[in-house]
Amino acid sequence: MVTLAPAPAGTTSLAPAHGELVRRARRVRLVLTDCDGVLTDGTVWVSEQGEAMKRFSLRDGMGVERLREVGIATAIVTRERSPIVARRAEKLRLAHHFEGVRDKGQALPRLLASAHVRPDEAAYIGDDVNDLEAITDVGCAGLTAAPADAFPTVAAAVHYRCAARGGDGAFREFAEWILRLRAEWVGEREEEP
Amino acid sequence: MVTLAPAPAGTTSLAPAHGELVRRARRVRLVLTDCDGVLTDGTVWVSEQGEAMKRFSLRDGMGVERLREVGIATAIVTRERSPIVARRAEKLRLAHHFEGVRDKGQALPRLLASAHVRPDEAAYIGDDVNDLEAITDVGCAGLTAAPADAFPTVAAAVHYRCAARGGDGAFREFAEWILRLRAEWVGEREEEP
Amino acid sequence: MVTLAPAPAGTTSLAPAHGELVRRARRVRLVLTDCDGVLTDGTVWVSEQGEAMKRFSLRDGMGVERLREVGIATAIVTRERSPIVARRAEKLRLAHHFEGVRDKGQALPRLLASAHVRPDEAAYIGDDVNDLEAITDVGCAGLTAAPADAFPTVAAAVHYRCAARGGDGAFREFAEWILRLRAEWVGEREEEP
Amino acid sequence: MVTLAPAPAGTTSLAPAHGELVRRARRVRLVLTDCDGVLTDGTVWVSEQGEAMKRFSLRDGMGVERLREVGIATAIVTRERSPIVARRAEKLRLAHHFEGVRDKGQALPRLLASAHVRPDEAAYIGDDVNDLEAITDVGCAGLTAAPADAFPTVAAAVHYRCAARGGDGAFREFAEWILRLRAEWVGEREEEP
Repeated sequence: MVTLAPAPAGTTSLAPAHGELVRRARRVRLVLTDCDGVLTDGTVWVSEQGEAMKRFSLRDGMGVERLREVGIATAIVTRERSPIVARRAEKLRLAHHFEGVRDKGQALPRLLASAHVRPDEAAYIGDDVNDLEAITDVGCAGLTAAPADAFPTVAAAVHYRCAARGGDGAFREFAEWILRLRAEWVGEREEEP
Repeated sequence: MVTLAPAPAGTTSLAPAHGELVRRARRVRLVLTDCDGVLTDGTVWVSEQGEAMKRFSLRDGMGVERLREVGIATAIVTRERSPIVARRAEKLRLAHHFEGVRDKGQALPRLLASAHVRPDEAAYIGDDVNDLEAITDVGCAGLTAAPADAFPTVAAAVHYRCAARGGDGAFREFAEWILRLRAEWVGEREEEP
Repeated sequence: MVTLAPAPAGTTSLAPAHGELVRRARRVRLVLTDCDGVLTDGTVWVSEQGEAMKRFSLRDGMGVERLREVGIATAIVTRERSPIVARRAEKLRLAHHFEGVRDKGQALPRLLASAHVRPDEAAYIGDDVNDLEAITDVGCAGLTAAPADAFPTVAAAVHYRCAARGGDGAFREFAEWILRLRAEWVGEREEEP
Repeated sequence: MVTLAPAPAGTTSLAPAHGELVRRARRVRLVLTDCDGVLTDGTVWVSEQGEAMKRFSLRDGMGVERLREVGIATAIVTRERSPIVARRAEKLRLAHHFEGVRDKGQALPRLLASAHVRPDEAAYIGDDVNDLEAITDVGCAGLTAAPADAFPTVAAAVHYRCAARGGDGAFREFAEWILRLRAEWVGEREEEP
């Protein structure tokens, strides 16, 4: 049976020790996010003219701003090519909007290079099976998350599982988690005995 | 009292033994799906001009693709005639879109024949009382399912009850169940002693 | 504290004995329904041009049809004047659409007279305080209901509390309850000793 | 971990004694409300043309009317500038619509002065961190509330936590709470021994 019931939210067993999480959060310069299922609940409103609207959370929008305030950029990485998502990316003044990315795992190194961001400076949040490779790859060096209603295989592969569902503040929650970790940073020197 | 509370998800008592489920899944060449209440949550947005929009899940869309990858087609069978649904069917590049089907049970043999699919090669997912005959008929030979919020009489007549509600990934869940069953197939020869 | 948590669904303590419910259901010729909060979840989508869309359940639409099949008409009684609701009423081919009714309790006798329906032939489903007088008046002789998320004072005044919320099949549930009660009718003669 | 699970609804430990709540409710002449996350669920529907629609509750609209009937005005205070919200404010015939207010705490005294309302005559409901200063400032003298799904720091700073979520009747619930408190008013004289 496929169960989509949310796993307990919070740091997962895959996450490194807390001090390492703080160090990684400190290094993050770019948060990559899937669109459908993360910034939205994975649905689309269809009219007689075709795909008409998607629903976005303004809380996530404030998450983008709060990251920007500490110098962290946000980028959408999506399989689709949707003018709707382009409008949202513009409104949020995102650093990058990578669309039509069919193989996210394969494309990631190139995308990061184009953004002048090292893999260990990137964080990633995704929900579906086509996010898995991106999550696993970035996960080696950065921070990864999934919404509460992510596919079980994805939820099982990330550092942080959101209490919020996709489209309902999951991105904001990931952003706040990163910001809280960074706030704990006291500098390498003070950590040493 | 009518209770719409979801019954426990998973295989029902109507389902044949596991080995037979695997054999049926192996034979499936076409998944038929009701639209309203399965691919959507059964609601419609109405404007001053009339029915304006319906909401679809991109996860279901990926279910259609994943079935296609193993050679299984998907068809919508619906009582309504809606240009909105026609747009969705086009977008998903569905094999068939049977609309205006008022008596699904009666029409099914003809629809399957037009698709060159035998009854035992068809699977069906539906949610309301007008799906019952189609489910019962197909159910004899194929695989049947219902979303978590299907009518109780429908939920009681299928092989698989989804954890997901209509419009919230029920079709994808049915597709993944079929794909998992097929993955267990080891060939008739190996099964024999 | 105002709690909007659903009370247990089903027949309430206000409902008459079961035999009387069956007799009343048998007499029903018109089901009156509030729109916002019953046929919808009480929300409206607003665009830059103003009220743009409301969301309706196709399950409720099938409830209207199923009532029609046994000779029971449906009418919307609403405080608003909305072209959106007018479109929905047309699509459902409703017998009556009473709009701009600010005092439902006062207007009800006149509305029923215009529909050539006696008070004991009318059923009513509503969710908000402005439905209370209509419910109390009709309730004397007919059948009354409220969605699961009705205002507590309304939920406390009806014969039947739906398990479904407004816009999520509450009207259909009320319709099916009436139809089930009617199915129990065995005629006055057989009931007598 | 950020948890967005609703705290228990009702009066919080920050609320003054009941008699004082009644006195404050009696003085209220203006209810200020954030828009996104309070009058809506904090989401926006985006089309190919950009922000297309927001969803509002008609129950909240009736709350505005019920407050107006006892002489209490309602005003929206929002960070955004949205023609959509302007349409809603017009439809509800709100006394004031303060938009583009980036620092609510700082702007509040000026906004209240422009409305000829003293701080102790104002009530405020908000959900996000940019409402905190407004809530804390008004909270000294008036009444404050937050929807069930408010940010934890906001939920922890108000007098009343709604059972309803933003966009799902939270404003109406706050309005009804104020109205109930006012109904308990028996005049200063009678309260004295």
